[in-house]
Amino acid sequence: MIEAPPPSEIEVALRKFQRELSSGVVALALLAVLSRAREPMYGYQIAKTLEGFGDGVLSGKQSALYPVLRNLEGTGLLASHVGPSDAGPPRRYYAITAAGQATLREWAAAWRATRDSVDTVLEGTP
Amino acid sequence: MIEAPPPSEIEVALRKFQRELSSGVVALALLAVLSRAREPMYGYQIAKTLEGFGDGVLSGKQSALYPVLRNLEGTGLLASHVGPSDAGPPRRYYAITAAGQATLREWAAAWRATRDSVDTVLEGTP
Repeated sequence: MIEAPPPSEIEVALRKFQRELSSGVVALALLAVLSRAREPMYGYQIAKTLEGFGDGVLSGKQSALYPVLRNLEGTGLLASHVGPSDAGPPRRYYAITAAGQATLREWAAAWRATRDSVDTVLEGTP
Repeated sequence: MIEAPPPSEIEVALRKFQRELSSGVVALALLAVLSRAREPMYGYQIAKTLEGFGDGVLSGKQSALYPVLRNLEGTGLLASHVGPSDAGPPRRYYAITAAGQATLREWAAAWRATRDSVDTVLEGTP
């Protein structure tokens, strides 16, 4: 039996794993939420909606969503406009584009294939 | 309706998504495979075993596994030794450590929480 490394290294590895896992799925979840939205949504609304879906990596810090939203807009999968707010400064509202809808379908298929593989590999792991 | 960007941008985004998704789950799958192995395995064996689990991101290029194996060894989750091969040059054999087993249980729990969230978000996406 090989001696275990200091706990801090394991914690670092776990954080790295969660970061890598989340960077892919957060973009997927954002597209899915905006695909089902009836009207454009702003960041806080999107974050609250994601939180409602459970306590995985999706319910992380709201601030982590903004770079992903900007990135998805940069590649044309989302579009945004600045609009008035009932209270406070104007907000940026995001909507999914036609390209975003098409991409969501591809990503969802890629997700399902990966999920099934991982679940099969993990069978028997407590 | 916003005009779609050139297909190449969507393809780039899909590749980025698959890369991010895979970087997290490949490490998880490697730990799971080695956790179930009765004896240390070498790279080609591990790659063939992963291929048997389906056509998601896990059945990618064998060469993509090696940096992840080295990384897992660097953090003490795997251990390796060089041993003889029936044919050809000596091979590097990998085994999971006690720390790796503990980490696998944590990662598997993180995976399941994330998977359930994403599946819920994706409900209704074709």
